Amino acid sequence: MTQFVLYEYWRSSASYRVRIALNLKQLPYLSMPIHLLKDGGEQHHAMYAELNANELVPTLVDNDFDGEKLVLNQSLTIIDYLDEHFPHPRLTPVSGRERYLVTALAQDIAIDLHPINNLRVIQKLSRDFDFDETSKAKWMQHWIELGFHALEKKLSDVHGKYCVGDSISLVDVCLVPQVYNAERFGVDLSPFPTIASICSTLREHPAFVAAEPERQPDAS
Amino acid sequence: MTQFVLYEYWRSSASYRVRIALNLKQLPYLSMPIHLLKDGGEQHHAMYAELNANELVPTLVDNDFDGEKLVLNQSLTIIDYLDEHFPHPRLTPVSGRERYLVTALAQDIAIDLHPINNLRVIQKLSRDFDFDETSKAKWMQHWIELGFHALEKKLSDVHGKYCVGDSISLVDVCLVPQVYNAERFGVDLSPFPTIASICSTLREHPAFVAAEPERQPDAS
Repeated sequence: MTQFVLYEYWRSSASYRVRIALNLKQLPYLSMPIHLLKDGGEQHHAMYAELNANELVPTLVDNDFDGEKLVLNQSLTIIDYLDEHFPHPRLTPVSGRERYLVTALAQDIAIDLHPINNLRVIQKLSRDFDFDETSKAKWMQHWIELGFHALEKKLSDVHGKYCVGDSISLVDVCLVPQVYNAERFGVDLSPFPTIASICSTLREHPAFVAAEPERQPDAS
Repeated sequence: MTQFVLYEYWRSSASYRVRIALNLKQLPYLSMPIHLLKDGGEQHHAMYAELNANELVPTLVDNDFDGEKLVLNQSLTIIDYLDEHFPHPRLTPVSGRERYLVTALAQDIAIDLHPINNLRVIQKLSRDFDFDETSKAKWMQHWIELGFHALEKKLSDVHGKYCVGDSISLVDVCLVPQVYNAERFGVDLSPFPTIASICSTLREHPAFVAAEPERQPDAS
């Protein structure tokens, strides 16, 4: 039996984060695509809702957690789990000033930026306000630009080759999927040279390359 | 000098979480109110933006982190920091199955439920779509009810006196501020008996009582 099964969607940022983390740690996994749009959204079907009543992807199943099955929801929890049990490389420092710097910057992206732009928010805005493609893009751009302005400032003090110094961290794992979304919705990245440059470097790393949405088997 | 200075706003859920955690750990702190509405929002003023370029509350300053100053953004990072350095009581289990259960449930609230209802999202909806008080309440209710339906299901398998078993955890710390928001925006809690009952118990605890928004010096 495969140890790791990842329930995910190719374009989901949170799924993309977990793919990067699994690849960085060189952990093979079986991908179980959950199509967020087909048939009213497969994340709402009973099979998946049993794994996550929140009906959001990703979910990682570890079939060998001390010989038992462990179901993990929430991308940041999944990556925390992987970090504790497969610490090479460690993505969140174990302790010290750097730990809190890394988790806070990752949360700036994963909590304050991304959820407002999630598919279900866009779907609700479309239903309630007849959002067309232009309105959608404007909504996305507004929040991404606001978040990136702050992030660009914060990174200027702490970045090296990567977001925090010269080791790949959880911040980088969250950044690349967010830049992918930014480009998808036409955000001009020129005001964010640090973000753009770190992201270019990261995108050459094989773990990031293999995690790219368009390379996933369910990409369409 | 006071060791802990908390930059916060009485009605901010994320600030409320940190107050509860500080109180549970019996750590005294100096409150520095940042008024999110006055003068265009004090969180945007230079004094605060230097502490958090993201211009969101809370920020905790520890003036004695091994003799140095440590500035911490993001409520979940702040609580993680407090847990590592002041572990009595521990709010997130150090390891094991329970750790990931607690962090994932807390993130269900802090990532997937709360940010969509944040003040700045409501302010943008008001500007863009002429949101009146009824539309605001409907928007809040929609996301809170969706999140609470899932949470109620998830808690049914794991709760005891509190959200996860019989010890207060990070989930409880996130739950009470979210229920406060639910009540503020007229969410009917009767479909969520587990949430309502745990919350009633928690609200009798002195650490939760002292953290209540209306008891804060900046409440108005």
